[in-house]
Amino acid sequence: MSGESDFDEALSPLRWRAGALELLDQRALPAEERWLAYSDYRGVATAIKDMVVRGAPAIGCAAAYGVALGALARAPLKEVIAELRATRPTAVNLFWALDRMAAVAAAGGGAEPLVAEARAIHAEDLAACRAIGDHGAPLIPDGVVLTHCNAGALATGGYGTALGVVRSAHRQGRRLRVFADETRPFLQGARLTAWELMKSGIDVTLVTDGMAAHLMQRGEIQSVIVGADRIARNGDAANKIGTYAVALAAREHGLPFFVAAPRSTIDRAIPDGAAIPIEERDPGEVTHLGGRAIAPAGARVRNPAFDVTPSRLITAIITEVGVARAPYQDSLAALCG
Amino acid sequence: MSGESDFDEALSPLRWRAGALELLDQRALPAEERWLAYSDYRGVATAIKDMVVRGAPAIGCAAAYGVALGALARAPLKEVIAELRATRPTAVNLFWALDRMAAVAAAGGGAEPLVAEARAIHAEDLAACRAIGDHGAPLIPDGVVLTHCNAGALATGGYGTALGVVRSAHRQGRRLRVFADETRPFLQGARLTAWELMKSGIDVTLVTDGMAAHLMQRGEIQSVIVGADRIARNGDAANKIGTYAVALAAREHGLPFFVAAPRSTIDRAIPDGAAIPIEERDPGEVTHLGGRAIAPAGARVRNPAFDVTPSRLITAIITEVGVARAPYQDSLAALCG
Repeated sequence: MSGESDFDEALSPLRWRAGALELLDQRALPAEERWLAYSDYRGVATAIKDMVVRGAPAIGCAAAYGVALGALARAPLKEVIAELRATRPTAVNLFWALDRMAAVAAAGGGAEPLVAEARAIHAEDLAACRAIGDHGAPLIPDGVVLTHCNAGALATGGYGTALGVVRSAHRQGRRLRVFADETRPFLQGARLTAWELMKSGIDVTLVTDGMAAHLMQRGEIQSVIVGADRIARNGDAANKIGTYAVALAAREHGLPFFVAAPRSTIDRAIPDGAAIPIEERDPGEVTHLGGRAIAPAGARVRNPAFDVTPSRLITAIITEVGVARAPYQDSLAALCG
Repeated sequence: MSGESDFDEALSPLRWRAGALELLDQRALPAEERWLAYSDYRGVATAIKDMVVRGAPAIGCAAAYGVALGALARAPLKEVIAELRATRPTAVNLFWALDRMAAVAAAGGGAEPLVAEARAIHAEDLAACRAIGDHGAPLIPDGVVLTHCNAGALATGGYGTALGVVRSAHRQGRRLRVFADETRPFLQGARLTAWELMKSGIDVTLVTDGMAAHLMQRGEIQSVIVGADRIARNGDAANKIGTYAVALAAREHGLPFFVAAPRSTIDRAIPDGAAIPIEERDPGEVTHLGGRAIAPAGARVRNPAFDVTPSRLITAIITEVGVARAPYQDSLAALCG
């Protein structure tokens, strides 16, 4: 589970090499596979903000390595952690990972235990994804499973959460096909999900976000699986903008709607989705694509990066320690207990 | 109603000048306002296929002018009409306009009455849009109205259907704001709706298609209005892909969902939406943007251009002769009677 070759096999978007963090630049995919090396924690903070690395579990791993880099450079760890904490507000895995690193820092011992803790967070996330895959695979009906955004190897320590379930089903010889929402504005579905599934030999068809409901209406989709950036105590789940619309359409057509995420995504501190902060990102992500304007100059824009799917629309939440179903208040408490 | 200056004032995307049809190239907007001139009906057929001109009523007008061009060139009108008929399958206004032109052709008289008929179709559509605007404006609640795709001046003979309602409300001094879905893959919302509303001084905010449900959940949208490409006898309405998902979200949040379209959009020949042919367009519209790939090479793609919103999700259908409400079987029959 801990070898570097194993991470590579799992399409991990981050790796620790010779005392530096290397990130696969997800902004450049699928055109280019470009790895960027960071030895300064501030570079890691900027990489998280700018979405060089994205996906709640992967952000957690990257931030942990960022703290390790800060420790290696003898930077004041309180400032290091504060800077990494201020990068993105919605995914709770970031805060969870930084809290773990802060606890190790508080125990003293210098940089070495912090590097070890970051590597452990990374390795545990990969293992969690594989367990999520095993728990989830039997739940997905045959046929076409729709996914939104990228909750794949690229969004995690490797293997993926929602796509981990698809990978496990695929390894078991199941004949699943995937429809991938392109996921505007950042196009994680078109650029990342299509790329990683094609690379793994899994049958994937790209659709625009507005097509999902129509394809359900025509009977072309049998289930939906997505990741999550933060799950409240009552099971409400924040995920990439557009997820909520897909959940409404799935309910209308009687399709199961699954959320796959590690336990670190569950925020026991908040009662429901209304308390989850929703990041609003740069308007340029909507008005421009690859530097080219696709809207009139000066157009007013909204760009919330996440939405909240109420737990009543969620068939099951798949974690590495088991599957939670309604009432989530109880089932999530049991999983986290 | 018939002067050329009046068409310009109404932002008509087509004009008849010196025996030629001029089309505002909507593929080049908003970067460039480029008018293309056609004196060959085959050029008009290609322009409709390639979406130089788009929007159900505008396609009808363009096709009518195409027949006029064929008549001026003494082309066999049966072939001219067959070629124009084969351009796009979903919008019924195309067939309605060609049937009108065929009837005039059958009456004989050469090119002149065909040119006059095309100009009449165009002028009547503009007048219909203004009447739709007047009927619809009182129905739209104050606040934010969401629209999907472009059912504006650019989609019609001028003024617009859904946006015609917004224009009429605006002229009456109402303080409406518009949220415009960008409408992937062709980006009619980002490129056309934002452009024409900004040009008219109407407050518009651009959002991606996946944001609409979230913004409704947050109470930021008070109503929805869209156009239609074909309406069945029972009120089921085909419109740009993504409309159905918006209608489901509007119902979930108790928001009125209006369809605005001229009577020529109602297809009395078909009982319900299942009978409406849905065009599947080139995968390149999804995988490429301005010639640039946004998906992995060789990615499999679906590209249905329209979807069907069942009439039970439609609050009212606004036409130039009045407003239809459920049961649509009866109310549409009365409007068309």
